[in-house]
Amino acid sequence: MDPMPDAAQIDAFTAFAETLADAAARASLAYFRREIVVSDKGAGVFDPVTQADTEAESAIRALITATYPDHGILGEEGGHANRDSPYCWVIDPIDGTRAYIAGIPLWTTLIALSFEGRPLIGLIDQPYLGERFFGRPGGSWLTTRGGKQALAARDTGTLKDAIFSTTSPDLFESVREQRILSALTAATRLTRYGCDAYAYALIAAGRIDLVVETGLKPWDVQALIPVLQGAGGVIANFDGEPVMEGGSIVAAANEPLLQATLELIDKIG
Amino acid sequence: MDPMPDAAQIDAFTAFAETLADAAARASLAYFRREIVVSDKGAGVFDPVTQADTEAESAIRALITATYPDHGILGEEGGHANRDSPYCWVIDPIDGTRAYIAGIPLWTTLIALSFEGRPLIGLIDQPYLGERFFGRPGGSWLTTRGGKQALAARDTGTLKDAIFSTTSPDLFESVREQRILSALTAATRLTRYGCDAYAYALIAAGRIDLVVETGLKPWDVQALIPVLQGAGGVIANFDGEPVMEGGSIVAAANEPLLQATLELIDKIG
Repeated sequence: MDPMPDAAQIDAFTAFAETLADAAARASLAYFRREIVVSDKGAGVFDPVTQADTEAESAIRALITATYPDHGILGEEGGHANRDSPYCWVIDPIDGTRAYIAGIPLWTTLIALSFEGRPLIGLIDQPYLGERFFGRPGGSWLTTRGGKQALAARDTGTLKDAIFSTTSPDLFESVREQRILSALTAATRLTRYGCDAYAYALIAAGRIDLVVETGLKPWDVQALIPVLQGAGGVIANFDGEPVMEGGSIVAAANEPLLQATLELIDKIG
Repeated sequence: MDPMPDAAQIDAFTAFAETLADAAARASLAYFRREIVVSDKGAGVFDPVTQADTEAESAIRALITATYPDHGILGEEGGHANRDSPYCWVIDPIDGTRAYIAGIPLWTTLIALSFEGRPLIGLIDQPYLGERFFGRPGGSWLTTRGGKQALAARDTGTLKDAIFSTTSPDLFESVREQRILSALTAATRLTRYGCDAYAYALIAAGRIDLVVETGLKPWDVQALIPVLQGAGGVIANFDGEPVMEGGSIVAAANEPLLQATLELIDKIG
């Protein structure tokens, strides 16, 4: 069994994650708001893959392979490398490809490092805004063009006081899911659509209280976990279990709000 | 009857609109992502009014009164002044108050000047992004931290190729409106929620093709018209009529797309 990484190693991984984000930003900003090539991967489903996505993931993979050749890598475009490593970099170069295509600067680059299946560090980067959210054991922080600040989720303890966000009502496909969405919009103070991973960063930043979404992939969610947890936030699936693999998830500013949300979902049946 | 303003006057009004936007930005940025006071104006409806909104509108009104004391002013917070003037400044210091409260940098400051009931100049400002969209007879442009660029809407002529945006499905309340929203999301290439007035600016910028919304007020819509029209875009209500007073509106990148959307709405009955 590999030893747990020590503080110096975690510092090195954090600095390296910044290098990866910088490389991704060069590709993502180069194509943002330019005419881009869009291909449909799914049958009948609009699933855009931009040139930027592909170039950014290639750049990230090349850097990881050069620096940590034994580490695992999991990404949407390039599959899973070095599956047996205790370390795995899980990357989504452009989360929110629809926002990206529509010219809306709320897409993000997601970079996570896990150790033996547990989240270690996470990074949520929005290079057009110049905002980079970090999380790791012991804390979360945000760097902007103006400096660096610690992140802390809010203590909003009830649904009626909570600011709720989800990317699209279309994520709630089944009748049960539609009932869950209706109950959440009715129970919360305010609903805001259209944020993708950026909404989770705003839970860590103490602005949004609750995000509920379905159909997430490992690369959609793994970077969010350290950022949320380092800021005091919590994240679980609809059954209250860990969410390293994605699925239907609840992210909340604190444990009471998570429990209130899981109770609401449970009552829907 | 007052003479039409000449080019020099329009230049002066445009420069003054920038002064107004700068004043609004000082108030809006001072409170953005800080704990703010929220009051409910409506009964049972969440209608946030922030301190920033009030301070920004006061600052704008004071500047207009000092510089153009005879001009009309219409704003959400302070009502309608100098109704008999041929000129009217129509202002919404913070369009997208829900985005503002949730810490999402897509709210905007809207400033319009009309002459004898027709739109003359429009400004859509997002000071956190450093993006300011202008429109007036003869053209539209965007200024950013990087410079100034002309705006041009796209030639996307069919719904199936169009990127569609609307702020929230909750804008579509009646059964008819819900059917219109379903038809639009099914007919278009991609749907994106959560943009408020910023979506209209992105039509002018050639990134989004279509926005359909209901329940807009004069101060929600008047600044958008010159920005859209100066970039080749079009805007009308569900009956194809002008929208100075707001209501249920369609904004499109070009006339064929507007007509296709009005036909879709008309078929819903």
